[in-house]
Amino acid sequence: MAFELTNELLEQVIAHIEKKENSKLNELLSEMHHADIAEILDELSFDNAVYIIRLLDSETTSEVLMDVDEDVREKVLQQLSAKEIAEEIDELDTDDAADVISELPEERKQEVIQEIEDKEHAKEIVELLRYDEDSAGGLMGKELIKVNENWSILGCINKMREQAEEVTRVHSIYVVDDDGKLKGRLSLKDVLMASTTCKIADIAIPRVDFVEVNDSAEDVANTMRKYDLEAIPVVDELGILVGRITIDDIVDVIKEEADKDYQMAAGITQDVDSDDSIWELTKARLPWLLLGLLGGFSSASIMGLFDGALTNYPMLFLFTPLIAAMAGNVGVQSSAIIVQGLANDDIKGGVTKRLIKELFLAMLNGLVLATLLFLFSLFKTENSVMALAISISLFAVIIVAGLVGTFIPLFLDKRGIDPAIATGPFITTSNDIFGILIYFWLSKTIIGF
Amino acid sequence: MAFELTNELLEQVIAHIEKKENSKLNELLSEMHHADIAEILDELSFDNAVYIIRLLDSETTSEVLMDVDEDVREKVLQQLSAKEIAEEIDELDTDDAADVISELPEERKQEVIQEIEDKEHAKEIVELLRYDEDSAGGLMGKELIKVNENWSILGCINKMREQAEEVTRVHSIYVVDDDGKLKGRLSLKDVLMASTTCKIADIAIPRVDFVEVNDSAEDVANTMRKYDLEAIPVVDELGILVGRITIDDIVDVIKEEADKDYQMAAGITQDVDSDDSIWELTKARLPWLLLGLLGGFSSASIMGLFDGALTNYPMLFLFTPLIAAMAGNVGVQSSAIIVQGLANDDIKGGVTKRLIKELFLAMLNGLVLATLLFLFSLFKTENSVMALAISISLFAVIIVAGLVGTFIPLFLDKRGIDPAIATGPFITTSNDIFGILIYFWLSKTIIGF
Repeated sequence: MAFELTNELLEQVIAHIEKKENSKLNELLSEMHHADIAEILDELSFDNAVYIIRLLDSETTSEVLMDVDEDVREKVLQQLSAKEIAEEIDELDTDDAADVISELPEERKQEVIQEIEDKEHAKEIVELLRYDEDSAGGLMGKELIKVNENWSILGCINKMREQAEEVTRVHSIYVVDDDGKLKGRLSLKDVLMASTTCKIADIAIPRVDFVEVNDSAEDVANTMRKYDLEAIPVVDELGILVGRITIDDIVDVIKEEADKDYQMAAGITQDVDSDDSIWELTKARLPWLLLGLLGGFSSASIMGLFDGALTNYPMLFLFTPLIAAMAGNVGVQSSAIIVQGLANDDIKGGVTKRLIKELFLAMLNGLVLATLLFLFSLFKTENSVMALAISISLFAVIIVAGLVGTFIPLFLDKRGIDPAIATGPFITTSNDIFGILIYFWLSKTIIGF
Repeated sequence: MAFELTNELLEQVIAHIEKKENSKLNELLSEMHHADIAEILDELSFDNAVYIIRLLDSETTSEVLMDVDEDVREKVLQQLSAKEIAEEIDELDTDDAADVISELPEERKQEVIQEIEDKEHAKEIVELLRYDEDSAGGLMGKELIKVNENWSILGCINKMREQAEEVTRVHSIYVVDDDGKLKGRLSLKDVLMASTTCKIADIAIPRVDFVEVNDSAEDVANTMRKYDLEAIPVVDELGILVGRITIDDIVDVIKEEADKDYQMAAGITQDVDSDDSIWELTKARLPWLLLGLLGGFSSASIMGLFDGALTNYPMLFLFTPLIAAMAGNVGVQSSAIIVQGLANDDIKGGVTKRLIKELFLAMLNGLVLATLLFLFSLFKTENSVMALAISISLFAVIIVAGLVGTFIPLFLDKRGIDPAIATGPFITTSNDIFGILIYFWLSKTIIGF
């Protein structure tokens, strides 16, 4: 059953568009899931994509628009009138609607919001636009079922039915007090089995997980993952229930966070994929390479300072790539462990404890590696003092690299900066420089040149 | 409301255990979510953890056991009798139960399975143990609601109620034919509104997403993420409905896959975290560092071959760390883009097309970087031929590194090997060696020594 986007299918769609065979196109696409139609649109020219958006009913196309690549959506929306966009928005849940509108240029936002027919929907969307997109408020939707704790069961069932019509998937029924504050949740089973004269408060379950509007997306993801939740209510600073977040949005958050961290570690500015243009990929990659080049200039300049070595102990230079590589590798390893621990929220205890642990770890690894290097360099240089200098330097470099790799992400995190930038070119480059400096300085001290 | 594991709380729990204040302990823990109790257990000694597992009822502890770290679970289960484990298993859904049993030593598995009271449950668990843990079969549970397409609505409602008792969260009602083959799904709303004399087939929705038992966990995750599903049915090779996978398990799969790829890219053997012992962390890190050391030996040996340079053009050696670092950075960037594209299933088109794209990209980046290096090295060496040789080498190195970084993951993927191992020390080390080789060979050719 798995949908596969074949070249034949694409050609068929394009042929239908060119011959304006609308009924055939409708027939073909109506069988498909909106996520599959979105995949097709991602591959079409913008004119053809707009043709399909205009052809299909707005119930389908609104969902399709949510699933296409962001740059395709941007260009397609540019071709549509404010009224046409508003029609799409009308079909979307408030959270998706707010996401689409937030991507529009400032002046179009107002136009589109004014064109939305359902004024209640428009008001809710405007409320959502206030929140930062990486916060719980930015992720939540307004569609939820809430009942007042003072209602009777009988009165509540009708209210629930009304609200349920607007909600695609009913995850939970939330209980609030007269002020709208979140008080608990209801089990549908309990509602059906309770006597109709009962009050909601009698059967409400007081224990309910929730997040605050200002909590970060990452915190929400950690909470929902930890407690295996499919939806979580969101309250404002006063404890008033203002929305809910569903797991499908959190799955996207988890995936995007992971992709972002991975790209940062690899020295790629976030948000590119393999299908982007050479120009976009260059913009994402070149800045980090320039950083690396600058690092290389620094290493070269540092080595230039030790001109005694260059004349008397040129053999030392055979080992600079080894020293730099080991400094980079150790730094990346130790920073990755810390970055991941911070993301999963299981870094407990202070910075000092971490640094001491990394010190012992680096000493253990360093001892093994330095011993091997001593043997190799003795064989290579046939000079035991030089071999000793080289391997002691490696030992020192590994310790410093491990400590730097541990300290930097912890420091960045304390400062409120995403520690993920510390893994990758940033740490590799600085450790390369530190490594070379330590190597030549220690060698000079030991050998004496 | 967010639970936080404080030192005070831990001390309180330990104090209660030491004084054997069971009722106070019960009172304290009964308020907590099982995921929070699991966090506490992760920090306790094994004796204390076992004490709590024995104290609490098996309904709670079975869930707690699912949430503790794998090594804690292993040690706690060692302390429990087969009968005690079977009691925990009895409380778990089949998928969780199978996960726990699969971690036991071979001979204990049999003992525990024989002690399970519910024989139907035991049979289902045994069936699940057959599947690879990274496949749809290994992720699925047997708890689901299925109805026969030939039943009448009236007959089906009772059957559904019976099955629903065993299912914690009802996600979907699946429709099967007489052979048990998946035919569609039911909307609960349609069931409630249909005439009782209708047949199920009349109201079944034929369009239903599903996966096969042998599909990889990653494919299941991609499907559920793409279609925003909260549950997906699993069929066997004959199309017979055999289980269902829920989104909470998939969230864990996505997180684990991402963590694994991130660690591999950083040169850490999978499955360690910052709280593991120094010994475990060394086992995860040292092998990759040894690979790096070996790479360093190779670079040193290669440079040793160009002894003409060492005597006549020692300046060339100032730039080896720069060349090696750039080769590593470019290789990691290009491989990361491919690895991520492969994981998200959006690498379309052949290998050649990718390589040509990377070629142009590398040429563009290489031109910018080589120009800057030419200026810097001209200033540094005051020798235009040498500066030209150095910068042309960098240009060549960047192109080769980009192509290697693109090719290796695509090649590994074709061979069925996880391409993620290509990003990280593996590609950095091989590119270091290639880079140095190209650098000295080209310099020698251009300058002539």
